[in-house]
Amino acid sequence: MGIDDLPIRDELRGKSPYGAPQLDVPVRLNTNENPYPLPEPLVERIAERVREAARHLNRYPDRDAVELRTELAAYLTKTGRHVVGVENVWAANGSNEVIQQLLQTFGGPGRTAIGFEPSYSMHGLIARGTGTGWISGPRNDDFTIDVSAAEQAIAEHRPDVVFITTPNNPTGNAVPSTTVLALYEAAQAARAGSAGAMVVVDEAYVEFSHGESLLPLLEDRPNLVVSRTMSKAFGAAGLRLGYLAAHPAVVDAVQLVRLPYHLSAVTQATALAALEHTDTLLGYVEQLKTERDRLVAELRALGFEVTESDANFVQFGRFDGAAGSHEAWRLILDRGVLVRDNGVPGWLRVTAGTPAENDAFLAAVRALPRDLQTSVPAGDTPAPPKEQSA
Amino acid sequence: MGIDDLPIRDELRGKSPYGAPQLDVPVRLNTNENPYPLPEPLVERIAERVREAARHLNRYPDRDAVELRTELAAYLTKTGRHVVGVENVWAANGSNEVIQQLLQTFGGPGRTAIGFEPSYSMHGLIARGTGTGWISGPRNDDFTIDVSAAEQAIAEHRPDVVFITTPNNPTGNAVPSTTVLALYEAAQAARAGSAGAMVVVDEAYVEFSHGESLLPLLEDRPNLVVSRTMSKAFGAAGLRLGYLAAHPAVVDAVQLVRLPYHLSAVTQATALAALEHTDTLLGYVEQLKTERDRLVAELRALGFEVTESDANFVQFGRFDGAAGSHEAWRLILDRGVLVRDNGVPGWLRVTAGTPAENDAFLAAVRALPRDLQTSVPAGDTPAPPKEQSA
Repeated sequence: MGIDDLPIRDELRGKSPYGAPQLDVPVRLNTNENPYPLPEPLVERIAERVREAARHLNRYPDRDAVELRTELAAYLTKTGRHVVGVENVWAANGSNEVIQQLLQTFGGPGRTAIGFEPSYSMHGLIARGTGTGWISGPRNDDFTIDVSAAEQAIAEHRPDVVFITTPNNPTGNAVPSTTVLALYEAAQAARAGSAGAMVVVDEAYVEFSHGESLLPLLEDRPNLVVSRTMSKAFGAAGLRLGYLAAHPAVVDAVQLVRLPYHLSAVTQATALAALEHTDTLLGYVEQLKTERDRLVAELRALGFEVTESDANFVQFGRFDGAAGSHEAWRLILDRGVLVRDNGVPGWLRVTAGTPAENDAFLAAVRALPRDLQTSVPAGDTPAPPKEQSA
Repeated sequence: MGIDDLPIRDELRGKSPYGAPQLDVPVRLNTNENPYPLPEPLVERIAERVREAARHLNRYPDRDAVELRTELAAYLTKTGRHVVGVENVWAANGSNEVIQQLLQTFGGPGRTAIGFEPSYSMHGLIARGTGTGWISGPRNDDFTIDVSAAEQAIAEHRPDVVFITTPNNPTGNAVPSTTVLALYEAAQAARAGSAGAMVVVDEAYVEFSHGESLLPLLEDRPNLVVSRTMSKAFGAAGLRLGYLAAHPAVVDAVQLVRLPYHLSAVTQATALAALEHTDTLLGYVEQLKTERDRLVAELRALGFEVTESDANFVQFGRFDGAAGSHEAWRLILDRGVLVRDNGVPGWLRVTAGTPAENDAFLAAVRALPRDLQTSVPAGDTPAPPKEQSA
């Protein structure tokens, strides 16, 4: 008796649950977690706020999470060069649930969503989970978005939802605002005569960017959504708090599909405590940006190709195809460092950790046999003779 | 610019978000919350466990919630006359998310689910949210399930998922195990030649029952699921912790659609703390059962019809149609007591509160004008002359 003996949906047959291996190794640089534990005063503040919330735990939580959304709006306003109010913000259990609610509202059966891959693979998986058709849009060989190819894909498929991840995961590069604007216009033009398409800008890693958030683009663009998370910059992956900023009508719309009382009182209390410590947490972000830039520089000095990174992780290669990157992943793991083999053939992704963790990673990488690498782009460029590949 | 100017799904147009009014009144008996705050030693234990969890909050939570599922299994084994292991249990953010995951796995576009209404309205709403066709099955006028009518509906519609809520919400009555077994067989027979249908027994209120949990029915029935919650008996509506017990293959299957890391570290820590205090919390359940039985007896003594209740709430009537029950709701509210007008014409639902809260409710009910009531069943029985309706 197994899964296939149950009446599961046909498209789920043979599939595996999504998720990185959770291996117990000394240095975990595989899931883009923030390596810095929350500071002890914040830990105490969380205990204090949760204690207070627990005294009312027999009651349902604030269904609309008004205090939390107000504080998230204040944070965005303070850091995002754009005034955001409580009516512009919605929160859920991780940005995954935010995306699921958006697809239940604006996607779903008979509708489609597009992303430009490789990108955050949960976009496509949540599309599948919500019955939304998924369109895999193109990227250039350097992992930037080819605007005219993307516009063409949008014109051809007329998607209901367009995902743009910036900084992109797993590649690390940011998407220029001009590209986002061009794709927003293309998406509306493709569905002219209807209420248009929704464009979701996933900014999970934006606090680590050399540039700025695209929040100001929300002005006069009711079909634009910016999604964010407290998992990375706030060092709170365990909290599962994602949120979005958008026109108030979008916030009203997702409430038609959200499960009532989806956000627990302990989650709301913990997130509010963390928001009280924003300045300290953003200080860690600055340290991680420095380390991220060091990883990029040192990997390049070692002769690796490295994708420009505006995130808290770095994509590096090129290894000799999927077999090469997988073998490199294994050899790095043998030295106690877990990085991510994301299924981008020839590339691996490493999260910026503490200086000591990054040193351990760099030592493991220095020990890799050179014949795993290839210095030549894959794709339409012809492969060189193997002996040139060091 | 409003919701309807956005490209939302057609079936969402004109809809309102689900949820009871959250009014600030002295006595809230409208959402079946447990009136007893968690005891202070448990509050402290929650703060302690969350403090410890917060020290690792920069890391993702245990994706599979193994410790929590183990403790939930131990609780079910201890109270449910059936041995349940960690491999039989799955947990999520409220039983609503459990149900959503079940429908994403076993329902969805092109599939249908049936419930016997009036029942927990989220079953139908989550079906809509997951693209699952919803079939409203029949009930008798006394709110019991008519087995042969239900079997006929199942044979006719061949649903992929069958919901049976016991004790039923909002009516309060339990469903006999013989009925559940008959509908399970009917559901499998209707889909003979396929992998069958899933039958979900929603036992959110079972700890308040005069009878026993239906967990033992899981034996040799891989298509059966029992869903539970910590919101009611554990006095933790604010925690949002729902769970299910089923064959291990069902637990494997829902992991194909669950959002990764859906259950936060603070939720897991809080639930584990509450499970340490099971005996104390079940003591409150005994008090509430006594109060529930008192409400039933006193309402009957006042001349109301009362549906048999195995839950922590009581359905009472009959008022003169929807207008009568709504007017009664308003008059009870005028006395500072909020009960639930669930949309069952002629009936209201009151949650069993503390003795003092129940006294306040009974005083408000005693003051109702008698001409709001009718002592005669609606439906196929002819309505009596109005002057007999007291």
